[in-house]
Amino acid sequence: MSDQGILVVVSGFSGAGKGTLMRALLEKYHNYALSVSATTRQPREGETDGKDYFFVSQEKFKQMIEEEQLIEYAQYVNHYYGTPKEYVLRQMAEGKDVILEIEIQGALAIKRQFSNALLLFVLPPSAQELKRRLVGRGTESLDVIEARLRRAFDEAEGMDSYDYILVNDDVDACVEDMHELIKAQHLRVCHNLDFIEQIREELKHV
Amino acid sequence: MSDQGILVVVSGFSGAGKGTLMRALLEKYHNYALSVSATTRQPREGETDGKDYFFVSQEKFKQMIEEEQLIEYAQYVNHYYGTPKEYVLRQMAEGKDVILEIEIQGALAIKRQFSNALLLFVLPPSAQELKRRLVGRGTESLDVIEARLRRAFDEAEGMDSYDYILVNDDVDACVEDMHELIKAQHLRVCHNLDFIEQIREELKHV
Repeated sequence: MSDQGILVVVSGFSGAGKGTLMRALLEKYHNYALSVSATTRQPREGETDGKDYFFVSQEKFKQMIEEEQLIEYAQYVNHYYGTPKEYVLRQMAEGKDVILEIEIQGALAIKRQFSNALLLFVLPPSAQELKRRLVGRGTESLDVIEARLRRAFDEAEGMDSYDYILVNDDVDACVEDMHELIKAQHLRVCHNLDFIEQIREELKHV
Repeated sequence: MSDQGILVVVSGFSGAGKGTLMRALLEKYHNYALSVSATTRQPREGETDGKDYFFVSQEKFKQMIEEEQLIEYAQYVNHYYGTPKEYVLRQMAEGKDVILEIEIQGALAIKRQFSNALLLFVLPPSAQELKRRLVGRGTESLDVIEARLRRAFDEAEGMDSYDYILVNDDVDACVEDMHELIKAQHLRVCHNLDFIEQIREELKHV
């Protein structure tokens, strides 16, 4: 079996609970590495460079694009966000399953470059529950919530491009599902071509 | 989530332990139904009609082919073997995951008709171990064993068409892997299009 790690993309509606899921997954299992994005935006209170983001200048970011140091990148509200390639490849080579929490455009860019990547989409059990959670946060105005729900509707359009959905009804159960899906990915034929070739070679001489 | 069962094809080298695996899986979990093949060969000692096989005449078998009652069929040594469609579809509709233990040609025929079917290939941990198991049975001559090993080599060619490999080193662990792979398949986007559509509809009105 291959010792190489898997590349896992996690997307999902805002309010579906991705953040909570990832924290719970990484706390419970230690074969995962969370990719750290590079960004040109300023650090917020409490954010650490190299942990929450790699904070870089516009100039540095453009250089990273030119030197193909990013697997994917996108621009939101005048700021760039991207996934540094070197960290991801190194972690995978060390056998870690690397998780990228990115949006659909980035997810599709990943799939084009890494056809064996696993694309997961996290959903709330229902639209009602999504709204309830967004309202329950109490941090956002109704306008913002409405905008997020409209955006969720748009995002739902791209769900067909993902491999699996994860319904986040109960966090623990959802973490287990995510872990099992990633474990299963290691058994994919495309991840075991070396092993298959080895068995074929052995069969010639056995 | 969909209540529809999954169609699972299990293939693998002779001597990889498929039979033992299936028995252990069906004993441990009760959401599975094993497809029963139709055949024109005579029942052997201890075989029961409707359990081991549906034993039918050549004439009846040809009629089943004509009336498209078989999902796939093949001929070996003057006898026909095939998978009756009605049983498979009914079990799936009842929410059972239906397992077909068939060879690669049949597996590919299934995949063409049921693009969402899950194709599993069971392997021994090594070619040496495969030979050891075949010899260990003590029921076959060296000639037969050599023929089986050559056939395994040919079958290995088609492994790329499968979704996952299962390495049968320890039966209990392999049964768990198989169960998890089938559970995971229920989370595939393609199995949840109705649920996704439902969420999209809800998002319009929430």
